[in-house]
Amino acid sequence: MAHIDLGVDETEFPGITGPMRFRPETAKPLNELADVLLRAPHSLTRGERELIAAHVSGLNECEFCCASHSAFAAAQLDGGMSVVDRVLADPDAAPISAKLRALLRIASAVRDDGRKVTPELIAGARAEGATDVEIHDTVLIAAAFSMYNRYVDGLGTFAPADRQRYAESAKLIVEFGYAMPQ
Amino acid sequence: MAHIDLGVDETEFPGITGPMRFRPETAKPLNELADVLLRAPHSLTRGERELIAAHVSGLNECEFCCASHSAFAAAQLDGGMSVVDRVLADPDAAPISAKLRALLRIASAVRDDGRKVTPELIAGARAEGATDVEIHDTVLIAAAFSMYNRYVDGLGTFAPADRQRYAESAKLIVEFGYAMPQ
Repeated sequence: MAHIDLGVDETEFPGITGPMRFRPETAKPLNELADVLLRAPHSLTRGERELIAAHVSGLNECEFCCASHSAFAAAQLDGGMSVVDRVLADPDAAPISAKLRALLRIASAVRDDGRKVTPELIAGARAEGATDVEIHDTVLIAAAFSMYNRYVDGLGTFAPADRQRYAESAKLIVEFGYAMPQ
Repeated sequence: MAHIDLGVDETEFPGITGPMRFRPETAKPLNELADVLLRAPHSLTRGERELIAAHVSGLNECEFCCASHSAFAAAQLDGGMSVVDRVLADPDAAPISAKLRALLRIASAVRDDGRKVTPELIAGARAEGATDVEIHDTVLIAAAFSMYNRYVDGLGTFAPADRQRYAESAKLIVEFGYAMPQ
């Protein structure tokens, strides 16, 4: 049970979906931010951006967000869940591009503390071809999931154990995005 | 100098204002979220909500955000900056309501890790009269500043040392809010 009465059946509206129903005024910019960062046209694919979100959520051990964004990444990445699982286990050894690997290192630093982002991490990403917008968006995706993870866990929301639930959500996100009522 | 070329004079557009000019697509939901959380009609005053933002930013040692939201809180709180300074130094001893003190304890926990919010912290806030919306919004303000702080510091932005700069910004925020171009 969540720490506050969200006014919903939490098994039906798990994780962030309960607080978003409870407070639609804040849900609106939260969903718009996710849509711009993870779905709007970009030089990083939707799968790559979801992988950054899953990676940060995994480091923060936010079960609902990690399972959700892993499923959303898997649905939009070549290699599917096996690539996601390898990134979550060891991004340095996972079969992803050198640029994405360098961006994941920046995301890890941001997740820890913004001040941990060093000129060396930035130079490493640039050396693999990362642009200023890609670096900016990686920093903001990692920062945003430092928020979403705390929002979901800080309210003590419910995370389903059944991975099929997240795969079903992925179908809706891939088709409709984050701006739809969830 | 920021880690990426923000395309602005950083002394003129310090802290979050540079990245917001660089990427207006993400600035829009970021500003809307701040406006809903910190300025929309609420049972917590604008000064109290800004104080939660300043407190979290202080714990994260984000100089730009802490100085900004301290100034915004001071401009909208009885007692002004002397109350803000006392909250930043020791919230348990500061001259604020017992309810706000209990909410600041929840915010501190969220800032550390969402999972640190205990039933006891929630019960403590309820015992002082906190409502579900107040608890929800405290969790989300603390989570959101865990994002804004990382965004500002993760990009290595410039923070002016002159406190008068922040007091000038406070006048604009009090009059126009966060949705205006900054």
